[in-house]
Parts: sequence; C-alpha cells; structure tokens
Amino acid sequence: MELTKHVPLLLLFTLFLFRAKLVLGERSSYIVHMDKSFMPKAFSSHNHWYSFTINSLKSLSPESSGVHRKPLQLVYTYNNAFHGFSALLSEDELKALEKSPGFVSAYSDRNVTLDTTHTFEFLSLNPKTGLWPASDYGKDVIVGVIDTGVWPESRSFNDDGMTEVPKRWKGICQVGQEFNPSMCNKKLIGVRYFNKGIIAANPNTTISMNSGRDTEGHGTHTSSTAAGNYVEGASFFGYASGTARGMAPRARVAMYKVIFEEGRYASDVLAGMDQAVADGVDVISISMGFDAVPLYQDPIAIASFGAMEKGVLVSSSAGNERRIGSLHNGIPWVLTVAAGSIDRFFIGSLSLGNGVTITGWTMFPASALVTDLPLIYNKTFSSCNSSSALSTVGYGIVICENGYVSEQIEYISKSKAAAAIFISNDTEIFEFSDFGYPGVVIGAKDASKVIDYATNGVNPSASITFQQTLVGAKPAPVVASYTSRGPAPSYPGILKPDIMAPGTLVLASWIPNTPTAYIGSNIALTSDFVAVSGTSMACPHASGIAALLKGAHPEWSPAAIRSAMMTTANPLDNTQHSIRDPIFNYEFATPLAMGAGHVDPNQALDPGLIYDAMPQDYVNLLCSMNFTRNQIATITRSSYNCSNPSSDLNYPSFISLYTITRQVHWSRVSKGLSQMSETM
Amino acid sequence: MELTKHVPLLLLFTLFLFRAKLVLGERSSYIVHMDKSFMPKAFSSHNHWYSFTINSLKSLSPESSGVHRKPLQLVYTYNNAFHGFSALLSEDELKALEKSPGFVSAYSDRNVTLDTTHTFEFLSLNPKTGLWPASDYGKDVIVGVIDTGVWPESRSFNDDGMTEVPKRWKGICQVGQEFNPSMCNKKLIGVRYFNKGIIAANPNTTISMNSGRDTEGHGTHTSSTAAGNYVEGASFFGYASGTARGMAPRARVAMYKVIFEEGRYASDVLAGMDQAVADGVDVISISMGFDAVPLYQDPIAIASFGAMEKGVLVSSSAGNERRIGSLHNGIPWVLTVAAGSIDRFFIGSLSLGNGVTITGWTMFPASALVTDLPLIYNKTFSSCNSSSALSTVGYGIVICENGYVSEQIEYISKSKAAAAIFISNDTEIFEFSDFGYPGVVIGAKDASKVIDYATNGVNPSASITFQQTLVGAKPAPVVASYTSRGPAPSYPGILKPDIMAPGTLVLASWIPNTPTAYIGSNIALTSDFVAVSGTSMACPHASGIAALLKGAHPEWSPAAIRSAMMTTANPLDNTQHSIRDPIFNYEFATPLAMGAGHVDPNQALDPGLIYDAMPQDYVNLLCSMNFTRNQIATITRSSYNCSNPSSDLNYPSFISLYTITRQVHWSRVSKGLSQMSETM
Repeated sequence: MELTKHVPLLLLFTLFLFRAKLVLGERSSYIVHMDKSFMPKAFSSHNHWYSFTINSLKSLSPESSGVHRKPLQLVYTYNNAFHGFSALLSEDELKALEKSPGFVSAYSDRNVTLDTTHTFEFLSLNPKTGLWPASDYGKDVIVGVIDTGVWPESRSFNDDGMTEVPKRWKGICQVGQEFNPSMCNKKLIGVRYFNKGIIAANPNTTISMNSGRDTEGHGTHTSSTAAGNYVEGASFFGYASGTARGMAPRARVAMYKVIFEEGRYASDVLAGMDQAVADGVDVISISMGFDAVPLYQDPIAIASFGAMEKGVLVSSSAGNERRIGSLHNGIPWVLTVAAGSIDRFFIGSLSLGNGVTITGWTMFPASALVTDLPLIYNKTFSSCNSSSALSTVGYGIVICENGYVSEQIEYISKSKAAAAIFISNDTEIFEFSDFGYPGVVIGAKDASKVIDYATNGVNPSASITFQQTLVGAKPAPVVASYTSRGPAPSYPGILKPDIMAPGTLVLASWIPNTPTAYIGSNIALTSDFVAVSGTSMACPHASGIAALLKGAHPEWSPAAIRSAMMTTANPLDNTQHSIRDPIFNYEFATPLAMGAGHVDPNQALDPGLIYDAMPQDYVNLLCSMNFTRNQIATITRSSYNCSNPSSDLNYPSFISLYTITRQVHWSRVSKGLSQMSETM
Repeated sequence: MELTKHVPLLLLFTLFLFRAKLVLGERSSYIVHMDKSFMPKAFSSHNHWYSFTINSLKSLSPESSGVHRKPLQLVYTYNNAFHGFSALLSEDELKALEKSPGFVSAYSDRNVTLDTTHTFEFLSLNPKTGLWPASDYGKDVIVGVIDTGVWPESRSFNDDGMTEVPKRWKGICQVGQEFNPSMCNKKLIGVRYFNKGIIAANPNTTISMNSGRDTEGHGTHTSSTAAGNYVEGASFFGYASGTARGMAPRARVAMYKVIFEEGRYASDVLAGMDQAVADGVDVISISMGFDAVPLYQDPIAIASFGAMEKGVLVSSSAGNERRIGSLHNGIPWVLTVAAGSIDRFFIGSLSLGNGVTITGWTMFPASALVTDLPLIYNKTFSSCNSSSALSTVGYGIVICENGYVSEQIEYISKSKAAAAIFISNDTEIFEFSDFGYPGVVIGAKDASKVIDYATNGVNPSASITFQQTLVGAKPAPVVASYTSRGPAPSYPGILKPDIMAPGTLVLASWIPNTPTAYIGSNIALTSDFVAVSGTSMACPHASGIAALLKGAHPEWSPAAIRSAMMTTANPLDNTQHSIRDPIFNYEFATPLAMGAGHVDPNQALDPGLIYDAMPQDYVNLLCSMNFTRNQIATITRSSYNCSNPSSDLNYPSFISLYTITRQVHWSRVSKGLSQMSETM
C-alpha cells in the first residue's frame, strides 16, 4: 500500500520499468523498419509483404539447432507514421531478417517512461478575446492522446454542447473489457487499445483490463486537461474548486491506450501513434518518453516524423527527471513541454490566540475543524519523528521542526495531536498533494512568531482553516523542480525543452477507483478530480493550445504551430521579472529549464513571424548528424535524400553546442531568416 | 471533545439544562402574567403600568432586613401572545406582587429542552400537482422560527427567485455581534435575538454571540428545513446528495433566537414568540419544549394561546424522550409533531471475493477506498473491544460481532485495520450519522455468509463502497425510536402527538464552524449541510407544510390547518401496512407514537372535513380541567369566561382517558360533528 499511497506524485512512474529479458536463442520483441519502395508489386499490401518476409525467415532458421520453434508472427504492422512491423525474433532470426530486401533497421522493443484547472485563467484564455473565440474553443479539432486509457464515465467526457463529430474522422470506439462502443460520444470520439507488444514479450501475461479503460488515472487526467468538457463543482477534496475544463473545451478526444498494468512497450506506443495518424487526429498528445535512446531508436521520434509529414503536431512531455541533460523527447520535429507552477496556492490559515495570522500551506483532504486548540511546543518531541517522544502529546496543535514534513505527518497521525504546524523552507512541498493529517506548513521566517507565542504566551492556542484556495500567488510561474532539464541527450543541437506550460498540481479528472489521498496511514480516499504534478500535466496544456491554434489556423503546419507558441512564449513571471528556477536557488531560469518561456495562447494566435520547417528540412538536419544511412532511413524512410545536409534548421530557438549549462542563451531571433515564412 | 463529537445526535440537547439557583431572599427570574383589564386608564401603555407595578413593590420591600437592594427592573414585557412581564424578584417581592391589582400568576423562569431533503419527494410534493403549485410554494407566507439563531450566509437563505417581502411584515433584522441588517434578504426577512432572561438570571454572564447568529446549528437546520431556498450540490459528506430545499421553498423565514450557549430561558422563549406574533408571522415553528410542567406554567402553551387567537399556527416538536408519557408540547391549541423515518438508506455495499454482495449501512464521512482487501475473522478479537487483542490485526477488513458498534468503531480506528464489518441487529444505528472509520453494518442474517467465507474461503477478501444513497427503502416511514410518546403529562385528554413527519437523518443547512462528523478519535470535520435526527427535524417539516396550507387557504384558522393535516394523515407505510414502531419490536405503531399518522401534504390541501375550533372552545376545555381561575387566566387572560366548561373539544382525534398504553384507539371520526365546519 505504501507505494500506491503516492500515486499523485507522477514522478514515480519511472519506477515501474519493465525490462524484456534477453536469453541467447530465445525470441524477444523487435521493432523492424522497412523501406516500402522495396515492396514487390506482387504484394497487395504492406501486411502481405511483411508476412512473407518473416515467413521466409523460417527457412533460414537453423533446423540443426534442434530447437522446435513456433512459426514467426507479426505482432503489429505500421503503415502510417512509418513503415514496418514488430515481431518476436531470436538473434539468428534477426540476423536473417537484416538481409531481407527493404530492411532498414530493427531494435529491441523497449519501455516507455510516463511522465489539470484555473490554468485557463492563468493562461488568460477567456470567452471574449483571443484564442478561445478565434478557434471556436477547438470545435473541429481532434486531439489524439497516447496514454493509459480513459474513464469514459468521467464528467469531463460528457458531450453536452458538443456538435456532430467531424465527418473526416476515421476512428472507432473499440469494444473491450468493461468497455462498449456506446461509451464514446461527441466529446470522446474514439478509443482504441494496443497491447500486442506486451503479450508478445510476455506470452503468459493476462491483461487485467483488456480495453481502452483507464485503470491508472494518468490518461483520464491528460485527456481531460487537453480537451475535457466543462464540469461544474470540480475539486480535489475542496481544493481548487470550480468549473473544470480542458484547454480546448470543444475539441474532440481520441484515446489510444498503450500503457497497461502489465507493461509499457515501444511497439504498442508505435501502434497507437500510427493508428492515431490513420484515424485523422490533428494533434497527438503524448505524456511519456523513452529515456537515453538515440533518435533512430526512439519510437516517438520515429512515429512523430511520420505524423509531422501528415500535418499532425506531436506534443510531448520533457520528463520528470529534474537533472540537467535528463530530458527526453528531445526530438527536433516534436513540441517538447516543460512544467511550471500555477499562481495558485492551497492555504492553511494559521491563527494564533494572540491575534497573529500566518498564511501556510495545507492539502489535508477533508474539512477539518481545528479551532482554539492548545498550541504545543516542546523541544523533546518537536522533531516529530519519534513515537515514544510524541506519546506524551495531548489533544492540541503540535509544532514540528527540523525534519521531513511527509515523515512528520506520518508520526503525528499516530499521536493524539489534533493537528500540527510543520516548519520547513522546502518549497517542493508545494508541488505535491500528500497531506494525511490536519496541519499546515509554514516557513522558518514565520516560525519564530509561532514558537515565541507557544513558549511565552498564556495558555497559547491556535486555529487552522482548510480547503482554501488562493489565486494570484507571486511569483508565478516558476519552473517546476521536477521538470527534466535540457539539453536533450538525443540531439543537443536544438534547444529543448521548447516551452513551459502549467504542470504543478493541475486539477483534472481521474479514475474513481484508486486512492488519490490518504488520511492517516490506513484510510485511502478516492476522488473524481485530482490535483497532480508532472510534465505529463504540462504536455496536454500545450496540446490543447496547439489544438486551438489548429482550429484558428487550419493551414498551419506542425512547425508553424510550434513556432507560434515558442516565439510568443513569455519569459517573464507575474512580477514582470524573468521566470525563476527553484532548484537553482530561485535564480533566473535558463532555456534549458523552460525553453522559450511560458506558453501564452492568446499571443500565439497572432505571432507575427512563423519559423516554418518542411520534412526535408528535418532530413537535412538528420543528414548533418553522425548517423548512418540506415539510421536516418529508420526515421525518414526512403522519401528523402541526404544531398543537402545542414544543421541550420529554421528553428525558433537554437543552442550553442558544448555550452550547455547556465551560460546557454536562447534567442527568439533565428539565424535562418531566409527560410522564414510570414503569416497573417 | 468527546461530548461534542455527537452533536448530530440532537437528543443530547437535554443534557445541557441550565438551572436557576434559588437562595432565600435572593432574587431570581419570574414570569408574571397580568390581566390588562385591570390597567388603570392613567397609563399610556402596558409598559408603564408594569413599571409602576414593580416600582411600587419597592416600598413594600423590608428596609428593616438591612439588605441593600438594586431597584427592581422589568426584563421583558409581553404584549402580544399574552400580557405580562418578566423580572428578577425575591420571594418577598413576589408575595407583594401577588397582591397588586391585575396580577394573574407568576412562575419561575425555566429551561427549555430543544428537541432536519429527499423528504419533499417522500412526501410527494411536486411542481405539477397538489400543495406546491396550489400555494405558489408558500410565496406569501412567513414562518417564524424560535430557535438557536441562524447562519445567514448559509446557501439555504439565498434569495434567488424570491419576490419582494410582503408589505404587512413588521419585523426587523436586528444588528448584533457578527450580524448586520444587510444579512437579511427576501428569504431571511427578519432576525431578532432575546437573552435578557439569561442575563437577568446570571448577571455576570457574558453572552458569547450576542446576536441572531447561530453558534450551534439547530436553528439553521430547522429554518432551512421549513422554508430554505433551493441549494444545488448539497450533501452530508457525499450522502443524501442532491438539491436541498425546504418544505415551503418560497416562504419567508424570520428567526427569533432565544437559545444561547449561556442558557435557555422561558422568559426569552416567551419574548421571542410574543415578538413573532407582533411582527406578523403566519406560522411559528418551535422545535423545543418544556418538560413536565402544567399547561398554565408552560410558556409555549401560554404564548401559543395568544398566537392562536391571532390566527398564527404554532407547530412544535413532541420531544426526543422515547418513553410512553414523556411527550412535551401536549398543548391542545398547538400542532405537536412526532418523528418518523425516511425511505432513504445510506448504503455500504459489501462485496465478498466469492461474488456474494451484501447491502449494509455506512455513513463514513469520506470517499474511502476499501477494495480487494483481506477479510479477517478471528474469535480472539472479533468482539473488537480490546486494543491488545486488536494489535495483531493487519491491513484488512476485520469482522466485528457481539458488541456496541459505536464502541467497536472507536477500537478499530486505533488498530491497523483498513475497515471493519460490524454485525448488529440494532436498527437504531440507522438513525444516527456517527461513523468515524471505514466500515459497514450488516445484520446477523447476512453475517453467517460473511463469517463462513472468511473462515473457509481461500484467501478471503472483500470490498466496501461508500457514499451511496438508496431511496425507496421499505418499510417507510417507521416511527423514530427516539420520538417522545404520548400521552401528554400536561393534559392527557387530547391525543398527542397530532401527527408524524420525517425526522430521521434529515439533510438541511448547518453552521460551518462546529464538528459534524469525526474520522478516528481526533479529526473533526465540518460541513454546510448535515443529516441529523430528532423531532426538532420533524417539526419544521410540519411547519413548512402548514405554511403551504396557509398559502393555499389564507382563510384557514390554526385549528383548521391542523385539522386538515391530521384528518388526511396516512396511517400506512409504503408497503400499505400500518406504520410500525421499532421500540415495540416493529409492531404496528399506536397513535401515542405517531398521532393521526404520517403527514400527507397534498391530501391536506383538500381534506373534505375541517374540525375547526375557536379560542372560546379551548377556554371551555380549560374550564373543564382541574385548574384554578388564575391558572386558567394565566393562559387565556381575561377575555373569556368559564360559563360553559366542556371537555368535548372539536378535535380531530380523541383519547380514552386511563387507557393510555397500547390499547388506545385513535379515530378520524370526531364526536363533535355539530361544531364541524366544512370547507371547499
């Protein structure tokens, strides 16, 4: 139970990596890229060609080994974002495949790392002017979300006020476990699921929820953040209460479930992205990424290249690894989104019996009443990390200092204390919702007043109020401590991340049957909306805004949409100073943390300049890298040539290679003005 | 804290009696009744006459006693419901007063005993037919509530959709502590407070909330039950959720606060009722009563006689003393309301790992997640009343048996158990909301399935769901176990109670700053709506319905309204059998428990017959009792004569004296057909 207790902390998703086991001679999952120009005309379809290809491997298989093998089978074929298939192959079979005509490359199936709503106000979206009315709230735009599935009954997916589904939509609502096609509607227009990769790699696995239904919450949260409908009376246990809505409240959601409790495989992610493109989505939102892989082995890089060619923007999360150089999805043709804070603060008001009032932080998930209780300060137990020391505490408010708040909350919950005041200067506490006992966190600066009164006051007493939400907190945004910093290990030549969007304690829908908060150690609570943090939450903000931009400017390419968002991003916070980075002592954030700055949707509607890029421009960039021909073709397939290699991509920001720490300078001024196109 | 933990259980109000101390020679509070026909014409007002009367007592005061006395002062004067005043008097001063012209009677100021919305549906109130549309939802009717004050910010007192205040209204919105006149509106049209009686009896007392503001919750609940506006999204921690509303959602509320934390005095109750009549209320709702006093010393009997004379119906609560003969407010000219259950059940669904599902009861006040946890049954700790025995329990669902559920919840909350299954046949558990730890109550009949599976199943497991509300439960209504049974000690000649109305776990507004539920022993929770039980909750249902009847039939006298409600009351439950009484083993309830039966508002709109009664009829009844002339005049004042004593009151029900237990028969057929008036 202890692990699931921290579900809202999405950083933990990185703990759940499944690794395919490799034993010599045994088969394991591979993703194989093929060059369709090699397909003999005799084949009526790619599928037939791929089947023929792996069937011909059988004859190459060494019968002499004495190993009886099952016939080779295709797991997936990929025909939209790129060309190829996935299959279980032994090393010798792979070696044979490499000699087949049209073979481009192959790599092991691998695991993906997974990385909410006053945010619309914080981003200045409003019904009167700017991007909402200009895009009709994204009405004709389809956002494909690659994630853990969706909870179709979530109020965010009701279709009140939605018009008919655009006729061009080719997707389906796939039947499955606890899921029938009637669960889709004019908001949630498509649901599919992809787990052949898991099953191929783990043949004895039973998929516990073999459908598009979300059993985790992440996909329900991201999709409702991007394009959820209006929901009155949403809150996380009384915090952040109000009418929730996605960034593009009238856009359509299509969910592609590729993450299952039993595993998360590249082949499934590829299949989902491939299908999303085929179904006709306008934007793909993918809040996950593959760590430490080169571009030509990164399924998202590969699938998103094909998506980009077909005019589909892929918006992705930077990751939650915090460190410089830990960023994933550092893909030149993808929007890579970092996370920032919101100007929202969940207040615990502390009132002392002497009239002094202090604004602290709390997210205790209930309407606790802590009024006029004795204020207790005693050095013998004030570290609040000893059950025996705390056993002497009576019913009152205990002051805790010099410790880890999460640990202190645990100890206090087992004492007779009614509540606690936690003294801490750790601002990262404000990024997560775990708060299992009544109490409030205050800073060391205010602490002296409290301790002095508790020590010298006559019958010192205090009160704490809960479930209060403040908006307009300053400074905001600040960079989220957890957001993965650039540069991208995959290709440091382009500055990543591209942009920052709200990612901290974002309120959006969740599944109703997992714990989202705790009271004490043993009481688990659920809620249909949760406030969680991660670049996974920032990404769908950007995706929703991209959908709005696509709605307002249907002619814009993925690069144009990204350019509009980046060139208009705001490097300043709400105090009109540069955005700050808490993990560097609140100094000014660098572009490695926040990219071009905080997304500014209304400004992006009319950016003035657009740095556009065509597929060939990206090919030229790839050709300038130290990649083999096959590595490049794995991404680009055969349609392009390397006759004009150039690292001079028309990108809205650039980076000076090898000066990748805090000295990096970001500039809105591109070098490639010659390739610049102007719009509006 | 332990006591306040049970605030929702209103029966406990009887614990808070304040008793005036009497020391010989010292002054204490008296209520004095005067005959206004004795007032000399020289006095311009009653007030002057009363002042003169007590000032003349000074000269009678024995100077020789050497006791220096403060001048005598009037605390209240009463001019509407009856004539008289209250004052601090010594015994010798009282003796002197008795000789003053116009003196009728005097008695010690005494303490009052205080006795809660799918109920509108349960009572078949609907917008299409019957009493709601016929009365325009009570739009022009004013309900005066005598209680603990009101929380004006409660959503029930918003005035959305309310028309202008009727011009005849003479009340005010009295300024006071944390209360200003702008807090009244077109819903809450008047607020006054009365505590001179408390201060007179306890001169050193400081009133902690010296205004009409409710610091307790009771008055906010009763007034919102009678005439609260529509409130969307109301619930008690997720239970009974929906749109709350009072019985008369368009009627006006005027609050007369007479109960304070510092005391509850008859003189203040009298002052409140007196003022309500003067202000022009149509119905007085008073959820409190004086226990074990004769009619001529019962302030509610006295004030309500005057109210009745002026056409104001007084609706009162029968009390929560449970026993036969414990009823209060057994006043012939008052509507006396007993409490019944609602067809609503708060479900804890218990699902066993073997597929068996059992419907139990829970009111755990949070969205607990108890899913697929080990089911634990062990005789060594199954009584769940030993911390040491329970110390061996791990994280799972423990089966508890053979004990008091409230005590077992306490012990379980201190163990490592995630939840418990409480086996009990005590149906009184369903009358109260205390449920401080995740769990479910099931009956002994279902228990064998659970214990058998826990004992013999392989890895037995279970799940429990919370926050579910069932309506349509059968049988309903049943008599509430707590409701005070008749006959009335004050006058057993008329069957009391008159009628039964919903009183168990009624959802209505509460004040936001007191505990309304607990989690574990130490975490107190608040909520703006609560589900509480008592005849205090039944009374305002009847009051609101009386207001609707007054709106539909402005010409009806108080007796006519009561008659309409009684003659149409339903003696059957929703299984079409007689209503049952749980404290008599669920046998059929007698009229001593439920009066004429369960109130049926739509039927009362058109009752066919009306048993009306004029003030003189009640005087004739009083004259037939074994009262002195002065005792009668204390109630009736001087306007009536005793020339025609008669116990033959035209009352819709009668009782055979001395056959007061279960053999009592109630009949809709009155003896006094000659005095019958017909309406409609």
